[in-house]
Amino acid sequence: MDIKEIHSPADIKGLSLNDLEDVARQFREALLFKLSHHGGHVGPNLGMVEATIAMHYVFNSPVDKIVYDVSHQSYVHKMLTGRVDGFIDPEKFDTISGYTNPNESSHDFFTIGHTSTSITLASGLARARDLRGDKENIIAVIGDGSLSGGQAFEGLDSAAVLGSNFIIVVNDNQMSIAENHGGIYENLQLLRDTDGQAPCNLFKAFGIDYMYVKEGNNIEALINAFKQVKDIDHPIVVHINTQKGKGYGPAEIDREKWHWEMPFDRLTGNPLQIDESEDYSSITGDYLIKAMGRDPLVVAITAGTPTVMGFDAERRRHAGRQFIDMGIAEQDAVSTASGLAKGGARPFFGVYSSFIQRAYDQLSQDVAINGNPAVFGIFAPGITGMNDVTHLGWFDIPLISNIPGIIYLTPTCKEEYLAMLDWAMNQHETPVAIRMPGGRVVSAPDRTFPDDYSSPRAEIVRQGSKVAIIGVGDFFPMALKAADILAESGINATVINPRYVSGLDKEVLENLKKDHTLVVTLESGILDGGYGQKIDGFYADYDSVKVLNYGVPKQFLDRYNVSEVLTELRLKPQLIADDIKNQFK
Amino acid sequence: MDIKEIHSPADIKGLSLNDLEDVARQFREALLFKLSHHGGHVGPNLGMVEATIAMHYVFNSPVDKIVYDVSHQSYVHKMLTGRVDGFIDPEKFDTISGYTNPNESSHDFFTIGHTSTSITLASGLARARDLRGDKENIIAVIGDGSLSGGQAFEGLDSAAVLGSNFIIVVNDNQMSIAENHGGIYENLQLLRDTDGQAPCNLFKAFGIDYMYVKEGNNIEALINAFKQVKDIDHPIVVHINTQKGKGYGPAEIDREKWHWEMPFDRLTGNPLQIDESEDYSSITGDYLIKAMGRDPLVVAITAGTPTVMGFDAERRRHAGRQFIDMGIAEQDAVSTASGLAKGGARPFFGVYSSFIQRAYDQLSQDVAINGNPAVFGIFAPGITGMNDVTHLGWFDIPLISNIPGIIYLTPTCKEEYLAMLDWAMNQHETPVAIRMPGGRVVSAPDRTFPDDYSSPRAEIVRQGSKVAIIGVGDFFPMALKAADILAESGINATVINPRYVSGLDKEVLENLKKDHTLVVTLESGILDGGYGQKIDGFYADYDSVKVLNYGVPKQFLDRYNVSEVLTELRLKPQLIADDIKNQFK
Repeated sequence: MDIKEIHSPADIKGLSLNDLEDVARQFREALLFKLSHHGGHVGPNLGMVEATIAMHYVFNSPVDKIVYDVSHQSYVHKMLTGRVDGFIDPEKFDTISGYTNPNESSHDFFTIGHTSTSITLASGLARARDLRGDKENIIAVIGDGSLSGGQAFEGLDSAAVLGSNFIIVVNDNQMSIAENHGGIYENLQLLRDTDGQAPCNLFKAFGIDYMYVKEGNNIEALINAFKQVKDIDHPIVVHINTQKGKGYGPAEIDREKWHWEMPFDRLTGNPLQIDESEDYSSITGDYLIKAMGRDPLVVAITAGTPTVMGFDAERRRHAGRQFIDMGIAEQDAVSTASGLAKGGARPFFGVYSSFIQRAYDQLSQDVAINGNPAVFGIFAPGITGMNDVTHLGWFDIPLISNIPGIIYLTPTCKEEYLAMLDWAMNQHETPVAIRMPGGRVVSAPDRTFPDDYSSPRAEIVRQGSKVAIIGVGDFFPMALKAADILAESGINATVINPRYVSGLDKEVLENLKKDHTLVVTLESGILDGGYGQKIDGFYADYDSVKVLNYGVPKQFLDRYNVSEVLTELRLKPQLIADDIKNQFK
Repeated sequence: MDIKEIHSPADIKGLSLNDLEDVARQFREALLFKLSHHGGHVGPNLGMVEATIAMHYVFNSPVDKIVYDVSHQSYVHKMLTGRVDGFIDPEKFDTISGYTNPNESSHDFFTIGHTSTSITLASGLARARDLRGDKENIIAVIGDGSLSGGQAFEGLDSAAVLGSNFIIVVNDNQMSIAENHGGIYENLQLLRDTDGQAPCNLFKAFGIDYMYVKEGNNIEALINAFKQVKDIDHPIVVHINTQKGKGYGPAEIDREKWHWEMPFDRLTGNPLQIDESEDYSSITGDYLIKAMGRDPLVVAITAGTPTVMGFDAERRRHAGRQFIDMGIAEQDAVSTASGLAKGGARPFFGVYSSFIQRAYDQLSQDVAINGNPAVFGIFAPGITGMNDVTHLGWFDIPLISNIPGIIYLTPTCKEEYLAMLDWAMNQHETPVAIRMPGGRVVSAPDRTFPDDYSSPRAEIVRQGSKVAIIGVGDFFPMALKAADILAESGINATVINPRYVSGLDKEVLENLKKDHTLVVTLESGILDGGYGQKIDGFYADYDSVKVLNYGVPKQFLDRYNVSEVLTELRLKPQLIADDIKNQFK
């Protein structure tokens, strides 16, 4: 049958094995069609075509409930549940998200984008089913590196004693995003090598029944396996051995690169657009490689996403044991950094803004209370960061800057970033986090920067009067532009680079009281709990200075247009200048 | 030898086995002396006497480095490292903390109080050692329930591939704080039953070498084991089978009760002071038990600390499968609550303020983005909560109230708490967190409360003019008292109960502009990112209302005196009234 005619899983239930395999071929073609034009998760979805078909052939979604970990591998599930248009009709590509989403379909149970949560979320559904007295199958699908996150183990541990139906499909494609790291991957290898028969079995050690499917891209084998576990009365792991990137040559070979890709030429695998511009990832990688050469105690840490901090395969090889990939395990990464710093090493942990959220307690307890001088690079923060609701970079300023004892720096350009990074990596007094500026790299070779950032010294870049504009990080250039526009109207604004959002330069703020009546803050993140509210607090008991805060109101947005949002929030130089002029009318 | 003469581990290294056993007896006596007079962790320390002596006999601390998980079982370590006075001299009881602390001794490497971090922290020390080219032993001591936290598994997974010396002592006392929950405890049982020989071995499945010590309270057996692993060139788990509470009859029998105890009579085991007053734990337990009786979908969740929400053994038995103990695994607890709510159940997760920090990302992603109507009870928050630096309850307002989509309620008394809890448990629209009032239970049977808290409706309890005092939660009575004092000076203050700290009642705040020039906020928590700064933000661009914020400045404090801190922060009715009067001079 033509996949265009698939509107629900019921449409494939009567098909022969040959027909199912033909459907798989069409799905793979649809995946490559959309992914080559649109970009997205390539390898994970190509590897799960057969398993997804087999699950929907055997189980009765949405009565039976399938929960996908990270849900970046749910594209075939989407095609099987009425959303095939989102893959084969370019005009509808953007009608579906890259993750499961209950607003899209009753076959999706959670909006998910962070790793290692599926077992827990699904076990909640199973427990609710048991309380209701119902009998449907509950299935969690996890793998592709996300088994290393602590919550996945917590989930295995607690699910083991459920005492009722629960099926955990472990998608073992022998990969994380980069290489796999950690002891459990040795056990998965042992289980693959012994056809699932090795007595030392991670899942059984967690108290869970176990079944192995050697041919994880064979629909018939998978259907047989799922039929065996359907309606089972206890938790079981179905360990399926899949091939990441299956069916597309380049993705089968370079599995790390093809985890996620921008639009590409299907024939060559080459990206359609090559962005040769510098980014903070490569700037960071370059700095750290040089620092490692000078000092054997410098060490770079990633939690499964090495390229965000510039550690491609070449730099990883070069760094040797001065580079550590913890696997996707941010808690472990943060506390390891604390331990390394305590032991005299100079650790730098590079992490997406959205993922540092997973280690708030470790930042607070293991790092800040202990005062160990680890350095944290926060990547893709702010409004220009990632725009999926599960990957927003809006929360890191409230998260980090309100923990006592961590300095959170906000460089405005490449040179300032390097000055701050160099200071942070060479001091031994305090934990430091550095927020990468968003958007394109701004270079300001003519500005000079201090070599000490241990106290909140703001930089008065332009001294004016009446109004002061404080531009945080990558919004600093916007402050300058707004001031330029104001100058045309005869308003000579002071422009301030705060450098530091975890505390206030009280001297500078106090001085503003003399000849300023308006202070404006611009930050690329949420207003609640953010930097602007610290400024509000400073002037709260003083009635001659008003403050205007620009940033994101407390909300979640999904797949937003950056420019539209900035306009709506009046985060454009002209709009800011207009607002300021209105204040002086 | 007399333990008074022990100033460092070197002092026991020449002792005979008989002498070591005599030292163990003296340590146990010292533990019971201090604990019966002072209170503290009873069972965990009594169980670890022999193992701690054996570690310090074999290893060379502080060159060899021992990291204790939670570090609540480090009392004997403290006695062996020059701090015996803190146990045998009542005047010095408070000179040492209940946890490891690098400020106390060079034998302590981290300030630790949350669970499941030791393997990671110690592995950081091991990695730093390797980078430095040194050779000392690094030892992590974990167990007593803390093995169930996800970070412990992340640590096992990443430590497995260290390729150098690393010793993980698993203190298996067959207990968590309450019963053990989860599949791993079955594997520990299997290993105990087979003298460590079972081929299905959790630690080996994580890729780590393994040794079992059956007699975990036998100094000789432990010394032999530790001698075998000393200077080992790879990671190994030493699984020791210990007896929680060993040597004190009542603690050997009721191991849950004796995990931590207030001062007690050694002969009977009875507490010296019985506090029969009502608390929010029992109020919560009572409410939930009744709700469970009415509705089989109501379910109470704990992460290893059931009594904080009133679920003693009796209520747990009564609740049956409507009560779930996840073990110490807060991430799992939060996301399970989300899954339960999605599945139609009515989950309530009761958790200490300090421990909800471990699940920030789960609150944000799995709960808030998904909008699942789970209910979270936050216990022991604020300045009157726990006063160890690792257990502060100051951060939950910034943490929870700045996540979009979660309503965070702050009841001021018992009756308001029950009204809010009842609303939260019976609505199906939104996640809700409720912050228990700190201190003694306040009852206000004459006040009336609404039955809907879905929007931020503040309560104007007393209408005045010029100054408005907003008292959050348990600081609401302080607002009333300050207003009473002001009334004596002819200032008729408005008093507001905000009810809700995750958003503002803008209508009430807007109305204040008409005839108020000062707004005062009182909150029991950190100011940065807190509720008061939201009020600052509301009035920031309006120059006729000043705001004064009362709360804790951004800092950590350790073992503080509540009353002294409240005075220092001017959080006393008279001081607040004085400050307000000063504003009108």
